[in-house]
Amino acid sequence: MQVSFSPDEIVAIAKPSMIKGSTADSIRGIAGLSAAAAGDLSFLGNNKYRLQVRESRASLVLLPVDYVGEPSVGQMFLWVENPSTVLSLICGRIEQLLWPKPAPGIHPSAVIAKSARIATSATIGPLCVIEDGVTIGERCHLQAQVFVGRGASLGEDCWLQPGSIVAAECSLHDRVRLHPGVVVGSDGFGYDFVRGRHEKVPQVGCVEIGSDVEIGANSTLDRARFSRTVIGDGTKIDNLVQIGHNVVIGKHCLLCAQVGISGSATIEDFVVLGGQAGVGGHITIGKGAKVAGQAGVTFDADPGSFLKGNPALSFQLEQRINVLKQRLPGLFDRVKSIEEQLVGLKKSSARDEVG
Amino acid sequence: MQVSFSPDEIVAIAKPSMIKGSTADSIRGIAGLSAAAAGDLSFLGNNKYRLQVRESRASLVLLPVDYVGEPSVGQMFLWVENPSTVLSLICGRIEQLLWPKPAPGIHPSAVIAKSARIATSATIGPLCVIEDGVTIGERCHLQAQVFVGRGASLGEDCWLQPGSIVAAECSLHDRVRLHPGVVVGSDGFGYDFVRGRHEKVPQVGCVEIGSDVEIGANSTLDRARFSRTVIGDGTKIDNLVQIGHNVVIGKHCLLCAQVGISGSATIEDFVVLGGQAGVGGHITIGKGAKVAGQAGVTFDADPGSFLKGNPALSFQLEQRINVLKQRLPGLFDRVKSIEEQLVGLKKSSARDEVG
Amino acid sequence: MQVSFSPDEIVAIAKPSMIKGSTADSIRGIAGLSAAAAGDLSFLGNNKYRLQVRESRASLVLLPVDYVGEPSVGQMFLWVENPSTVLSLICGRIEQLLWPKPAPGIHPSAVIAKSARIATSATIGPLCVIEDGVTIGERCHLQAQVFVGRGASLGEDCWLQPGSIVAAECSLHDRVRLHPGVVVGSDGFGYDFVRGRHEKVPQVGCVEIGSDVEIGANSTLDRARFSRTVIGDGTKIDNLVQIGHNVVIGKHCLLCAQVGISGSATIEDFVVLGGQAGVGGHITIGKGAKVAGQAGVTFDADPGSFLKGNPALSFQLEQRINVLKQRLPGLFDRVKSIEEQLVGLKKSSARDEVG
Repeated sequence: MQVSFSPDEIVAIAKPSMIKGSTADSIRGIAGLSAAAAGDLSFLGNNKYRLQVRESRASLVLLPVDYVGEPSVGQMFLWVENPSTVLSLICGRIEQLLWPKPAPGIHPSAVIAKSARIATSATIGPLCVIEDGVTIGERCHLQAQVFVGRGASLGEDCWLQPGSIVAAECSLHDRVRLHPGVVVGSDGFGYDFVRGRHEKVPQVGCVEIGSDVEIGANSTLDRARFSRTVIGDGTKIDNLVQIGHNVVIGKHCLLCAQVGISGSATIEDFVVLGGQAGVGGHITIGKGAKVAGQAGVTFDADPGSFLKGNPALSFQLEQRINVLKQRLPGLFDRVKSIEEQLVGLKKSSARDEVG
Repeated sequence: MQVSFSPDEIVAIAKPSMIKGSTADSIRGIAGLSAAAAGDLSFLGNNKYRLQVRESRASLVLLPVDYVGEPSVGQMFLWVENPSTVLSLICGRIEQLLWPKPAPGIHPSAVIAKSARIATSATIGPLCVIEDGVTIGERCHLQAQVFVGRGASLGEDCWLQPGSIVAAECSLHDRVRLHPGVVVGSDGFGYDFVRGRHEKVPQVGCVEIGSDVEIGANSTLDRARFSRTVIGDGTKIDNLVQIGHNVVIGKHCLLCAQVGISGSATIEDFVVLGGQAGVGGHITIGKGAKVAGQAGVTFDADPGSFLKGNPALSFQLEQRINVLKQRLPGLFDRVKSIEEQLVGLKKSSARDEVG
Repeated sequence: MQVSFSPDEIVAIAKPSMIKGSTADSIRGIAGLSAAAAGDLSFLGNNKYRLQVRESRASLVLLPVDYVGEPSVGQMFLWVENPSTVLSLICGRIEQLLWPKPAPGIHPSAVIAKSARIATSATIGPLCVIEDGVTIGERCHLQAQVFVGRGASLGEDCWLQPGSIVAAECSLHDRVRLHPGVVVGSDGFGYDFVRGRHEKVPQVGCVEIGSDVEIGANSTLDRARFSRTVIGDGTKIDNLVQIGHNVVIGKHCLLCAQVGISGSATIEDFVVLGGQAGVGGHITIGKGAKVAGQAGVTFDADPGSFLKGNPALSFQLEQRINVLKQRLPGLFDRVKSIEEQLVGLKKSSARDEVG
């Protein structure tokens, strides 16, 4: 990182309840306690690292209020309510310094259709393409090489990173962040098998993305066959995720990397899907359900349930099966031994009968 | 959708065998029977929704010939042979209106090598790059920010959507549609381990894509080590699919999202691969075989087979195993109980012997 | 391929220990022994194809020194130490001819910030965007439509293919090759759940990529929360791979297509991860470990271990479980039969007791 803070600036952000020691270093980096060197800020975010504080060479350390200890010479300790939260505040400040929002305006290399309506406070970066009938709201930032197709609309304060694509007719509400290479509005995967060929079912719906949604790099969201594919407010989607046509995702969900959602599935609010999990078509994942990484969900999932495995079962059952699976070799041996004992018992029983 | 049809226009497309009722509304949307509102077209595509027709507020409803019922006031019913097929016809018309093919010509912002041969009926959109020796056939449409590398060739009527990439020497036949972010012709993943390092095996083959192929957003197709990676006519590939080097895919296959095919695998005609399925290197999936989602195929699959699981087994065996897996806890209990009973029987048998 | 070699040129590259026969054909293609036609070069790389040499119609065949046989009329045989290695040499030559390195310079359509420092021997292709404070080393080649963000740096001889993206502050050492659509430096996926919403944890670290690293098409590498996500020297990453924030990957690893590595995982040197495998967060895969395709690793893996399955177990145990799994139907039958026999034995035992 190419920014630096004086200790005083950190104090101003952190608002510590207590300060001990002082440092002449300016803070130019952030590092874990054991990796930190002079010029670094560090923090005690997890009690298991408590003993590392004493050894840390960080110039400035954020500590929870119950920590007891003294800084070394040239080292500054700040006691705060929640070191992780303060760290996020500092990182937020760094973010603004590292990539400041550029001045409003349209880069001369961008190709903008005449009928596009672009707010004067928006920034359209180099080599973007904006087609006919597009609406771009206040303070939006299209960074570079972004494509916005015919009739699409962006609300306010959206940030479209380099190479992201919003295809025709799709809409983004406010404060949506698309990471590089995201595709919003590719065709759904729909064909009729007619006379030995797959005939395309036209996909003329759109994608509607709620406010405060973030979508990770190279993820793809298909437009609906008709009507809309929907992503609810506050939902966060990681990289390389696939959302099929007519999927409806609720509010405040988390979809980890490489998740795939088949067409017409419904994901209710506050659902969490682990990395590489797959969800079958036309099923519903109930509110607040959790799905473990790599799980394959092929039936409706109850609200609040926790699923794992493929086909996905309740987490507890799947865990038990996974333990027992490892004991299968022993089980086969036991059954074989039982069968041999039975033969013996039968012989002896037969002798008894005869005898 | 920003298009509308008069009821007469819908009648002209649908060619109904019977009409009842009439509506003054223009049709501005398509929706399922229960979600539809005034101004919407709806349809009965599946008999289980038959009872919803009576309650539907759609202005116009497409019905199968065996449906019996009357429209409400201001509502129009059209009886047709196949409501789904008629809907596809209407959606096809909408598609043309929503994203009409632009006029032929080369956008001034595109960067075109002098030696490229571009048909006069083709459309090259803004900020495309076309390198030396490229051939672009009649009526091709490179939408925006498309890259076509040195010596590549496109047949007729191809549609390359924004940000799609066709690397050097690769060829597309006719009516190929690439969705945004598709990469055709990245290097295959081949290395020799020499003196503690992975030395690159040069990848100098190409990718050849047949006619009527469609490739989903951000999918990647690797060029062959030498010779060709091949996608057969009429095959449809969904989003985020990976095709390794020297893979040969037959005609009219369906590859669902996030499928991965390892190098030198052969997929014969009419194969269907479910989402997130993986196919190992150098194996063959026989004609018409089906592979369930998330399956991992590591051996040759017979023509017409249906595989599931990882490692993939026959669908029926895998389903049976999945049922039995859930009964493993009970099985372990039963075996334990048997062992205890055996101890009892042995004791009693020993008593008998002694007695 | 659009290049050709005379037989003499091939001899000059191959440096054979023995030559038999001759051909008037120029070599315009490479093919397997059975597929080869006149004008093709072929090779015997694997002894199981030995019998195909006699039938091959290739104009020129590379053979290992222990092969015994005679060429047909108009056919040339070259005996060499390692036919595969010689083939790689020839393919490397083809590569240089097919896509020669372009002359240094900056294409007039590229958009370059004034503060960027670009080596005079570098080539910046059409429609690239280079932001403020970027450093581009000697002989780098940014092919077309590449994005390099604020403060990023490239060493020497890097090749960034069309549409690849290096986000702000990230650094590439020497001879790094990014395939089309690669995203280096997207935000890590980190949120705090506060008052019913996911609040973004700012991601202000970077990605640092060692020398001789190659990254496949549309793969995504997240920047660290703070500090660095690291890819070690000589590591090769295939297409559509996801690398989470703060991941540290060692030297000379191979990550096959569609692998996903969760945040803060450590992958030590010489690790091989099969296609579609997943690695959980905060775990360590020890040096030289191998992970089979589609495996899900959720615990630390010992150096040199070989893991398979989800949850991943030792390869041998997982293989044994997979065999036994298929025998589960039989096992359930056997246990049922045992239970029935026990009932019989108990009855007979009870009779004995009574009798």
